[in-house]
Amino acid sequence: MLEKTIRDIAKKAREASFYLANVSTDKKNKALNIAAQLINERREEISEVNREDVREAERKGVSKAFIDRLTLTEKRINGMVKSLNEVSMLEDPVGTIIRGWKRPNGLQILQMRVPIGVIGIIYESRPNVTVEASSLCLKTGNATILRGGREAINSNRILYTILSEAVKRAGLPEGCIGFIDSVDRKAIKYLIRMNGLVNLIIPRGGEGLINFVTENATVPVIKHYKGLCHTYVDEFASLPMAQEIVYNAKVQRPGVCNAIETLLVHKNIAGKFLPEMIRRLQEAGVEIRGCERTRKVVPQIREAEEKDWDTEYLDLILSIKVVDDIEEAIEHINKHGSQHSEAIITENYERAMEFLYRVDAATVYVNSSTRFTDGGEFGMGAEIGISTDKMHARGPMGLPELTTYKYLILGNGQIRK
Amino acid sequence: MLEKTIRDIAKKAREASFYLANVSTDKKNKALNIAAQLINERREEISEVNREDVREAERKGVSKAFIDRLTLTEKRINGMVKSLNEVSMLEDPVGTIIRGWKRPNGLQILQMRVPIGVIGIIYESRPNVTVEASSLCLKTGNATILRGGREAINSNRILYTILSEAVKRAGLPEGCIGFIDSVDRKAIKYLIRMNGLVNLIIPRGGEGLINFVTENATVPVIKHYKGLCHTYVDEFASLPMAQEIVYNAKVQRPGVCNAIETLLVHKNIAGKFLPEMIRRLQEAGVEIRGCERTRKVVPQIREAEEKDWDTEYLDLILSIKVVDDIEEAIEHINKHGSQHSEAIITENYERAMEFLYRVDAATVYVNSSTRFTDGGEFGMGAEIGISTDKMHARGPMGLPELTTYKYLILGNGQIRK
Repeated sequence: MLEKTIRDIAKKAREASFYLANVSTDKKNKALNIAAQLINERREEISEVNREDVREAERKGVSKAFIDRLTLTEKRINGMVKSLNEVSMLEDPVGTIIRGWKRPNGLQILQMRVPIGVIGIIYESRPNVTVEASSLCLKTGNATILRGGREAINSNRILYTILSEAVKRAGLPEGCIGFIDSVDRKAIKYLIRMNGLVNLIIPRGGEGLINFVTENATVPVIKHYKGLCHTYVDEFASLPMAQEIVYNAKVQRPGVCNAIETLLVHKNIAGKFLPEMIRRLQEAGVEIRGCERTRKVVPQIREAEEKDWDTEYLDLILSIKVVDDIEEAIEHINKHGSQHSEAIITENYERAMEFLYRVDAATVYVNSSTRFTDGGEFGMGAEIGISTDKMHARGPMGLPELTTYKYLILGNGQIRK
Repeated sequence: MLEKTIRDIAKKAREASFYLANVSTDKKNKALNIAAQLINERREEISEVNREDVREAERKGVSKAFIDRLTLTEKRINGMVKSLNEVSMLEDPVGTIIRGWKRPNGLQILQMRVPIGVIGIIYESRPNVTVEASSLCLKTGNATILRGGREAINSNRILYTILSEAVKRAGLPEGCIGFIDSVDRKAIKYLIRMNGLVNLIIPRGGEGLINFVTENATVPVIKHYKGLCHTYVDEFASLPMAQEIVYNAKVQRPGVCNAIETLLVHKNIAGKFLPEMIRRLQEAGVEIRGCERTRKVVPQIREAEEKDWDTEYLDLILSIKVVDDIEEAIEHINKHGSQHSEAIITENYERAMEFLYRVDAATVYVNSSTRFTDGGEFGMGAEIGISTDKMHARGPMGLPELTTYKYLILGNGQIRK
C-alpha cells in the first residue's frame, strides 16, 4: 500500500522530469519567484504550523540543537524567500556544452549538460531543506521527491503545498516536486530501491540515516556525511597565523561539518605553540582533550582516548595530538579523517605540496581555515550540500553538480566500417 | 574466511592506492610496457592455459558465443600487447587542473583530477578484460581488484601473475592489482560491500551479474548494462542514407551493445522505405519481426510480440514498428530503450532538434549509425566500457572518467568572518 503510494509519486516525478528536462529557464525561474512570493505572503501560517511541530518535539524531549534546526524563525523564513529569488538569478547549467569536438569521419560530438532526472532528498529535522533542495533541483530541471524527518512533518507539508502551488501557477507539471507524507521508515526503503524511476538519492542527516540509506539503496547515492576535519600546524608555520586559523576553524561555528575536531601539531613547535593556543581556546569555552605529549606541555587538560580521533564532536571540544613529522600527520588524517576538509599551516613550500597531494579529502587547504568548504564561499551561488563521496561530485555541490550529460552526435550519413 | 581473504586484498589495494595516487606517469608507463613485453614473451604459456579453460567450458556445453569470448586467439594476445603499449602512450589525466579561480578574499581554488582509489572490476568470460581493465586503472593511478568469471579462472590467473610481475619490476607496490582467486559468488558479495576500502565497482556482464551487483552493493557502482538501441527513420529522411545507416547499425556487428534492436519508421514513408530495407536485411540473414502495420507493407514476416520491444537480441534479429509521428517514436524509445545509443534519420531541422533534446540516452545521433558509441570511435584512445548509468560517467568511459577530483585551496591566513 505504502509502496504503491511511493511508486505513484515516483512515476509522476519521472513523467514530470521528461517535461522539465526541456522547459525554458524562464519558466523554471517563474516557479521559483512565485514560490518566494507565496512563502512571504503566508509566513504567519507557516510559523504557526511550525510552532506546533516545535511544541510536539519539545514534549518528546529532543535536544536543544534539534529544536534549533527545527524552528522556522522570522530570519529563516526570510532566508527561504531570499534564497528562492537568488536561485532564480543563478545561471542555468542545463544545455551548457561542456566540450565538443569533430572526428576525422566528420561526426560532430557535443557533450551537453542535462538534468539527472528524479532526485530523492532524504533529510531530518530542518524544514528549510524542503525549500532549498527542491528549488535547486527545479532550477536544474530535476524532479524532486522529498522525505523529511518525522518531527518536521507539518512544517514540511505546508512548505510543500506552497511549492506545489507555485509549480502549478508557473505552468509546470505537478509531479516536479513530490512529497512523501509518511513518517514510516519503510517509505525511505521503498524510495531508495526504485531503480528506473528514481535516478539519485541525496541523504542529509546523521550517521543512522546515512548508514540506513547506504545499506539499503539500489539507486545511486551521494552521501552528505560527517566532517571529521583536521588542521596540522607544521614546524615551519607562522605561529600567529596558525593561532588565528585554528581558533576560527574550531570556534566560529563549531556545530557544522567544516569545523575542525582534531588539531595536529609538529613536535618541534608544540612547546611554543600549544600553551597560548590552548589558553585562547579554553577562554572561548573549548574543552581540550590531548595526547600524552600535549599533556606534557599543558598538563591540566583531559586525556584524549583512542575514540576521540574518530569523533565528530560538532561542539566546543577539540582533540590535540603532537606528531613527529608531516608523515605522521598525513597518515593520521588519511586514517581518521572523513575526507571532507583538511588544512596545513606552513611557510615551507615542500611541506605544503606534500600535504596538498597526499591528503585524500574533498578540499585540502594551505594556510586557511577549513570553514570555507561551502558552496557560497566557493562562489557557487548555492549548494545542495557537501558530498563526502568521490563519485560524480566531491565537496560543495552547486547547480552543475546536479546535472549529468549526454552526447549529441551530428552526422551526415556516417556508418562504421 | 573468504571474507577475510577479500578484505586483505582490499586493504592491500587501498594502501597501494595511496602510493599510486602520487607516483610519476613514467613509472606507471614502465609497468605497462613491461607487462606488454612479458605477455609477448609468455604467449605460448598463456595460450596453453587458456586452451584448458576452453576445453573445460566446452565439456560443460556452453554456447559458441561464450567460447568465442573465452578464447585467447593469437590475435587477441597481440591485441593485449598492443593495447598495453597504447595505454602507456595516452595522456595521464591525474593532476590536470579542471578549473581554477580566485575568491574575493584571496583564496585560490584549484579543482584537480585525482584517482578514485580502489576499483573493483567484476566481469565474466573474457580474460582479456583482466589486462584491459587493470591497465586503464593503473594508468589513472587506481588500484584494481579483479574478479573474473569461473570459466576463465586459469587464464585470468596467469594474466594476473604476469601483470603482478610487471608491477613489481616497475617498482610499484604489489597491491596495485589484486586478484580474487575464488569462483564462489560470495566473494563478489563481500567485495561490493567493502565501503571504506573499495571506492567503485564496475560490473561488466549479463543481466544476472548486473542485477546481483546492483541489488547487493553498498559501494558505488557504474553499470555497463545492455544496449537496447533504436533508429527512427523520419518521414523527412533521405531514404538511401537511412538504408545504409540501418543496415550498418544492425548487420556490421550484431553482437555488441551499440547495434540496434528495433527500427522505428514514420507511417508516411513506411510503404516506400520498408520493402527494400527488409529485403536487404533478410539477404544479410536478419530475421525480421514486425508490428501489424509493418506486416501490412511486407506481409511475409513474423509478428513482433510485446516482449520484442524490450529484448536485446545481440543477434541478427530486428524488430520493426511503424509509428504515427516523432512523438510516438520518442515515447517508444524513452519507454523501451536502455538509454545507450539512439538515432534519428531526418533532413528536417526541427525534427532533429526535437529528437536530440527529448531522447533520454547517453548518446543521441542524427543521420549516423549508432555503432560509433565507443571510446575508440570517440577518440578517447581507450575505454573501460560504456556506462549506462547517469551518475559520474555516461556513455564511453575513457581515462578521465576513471578519475575524481579534489579541491586544492591556497591561502595566506584566511579565516571566515
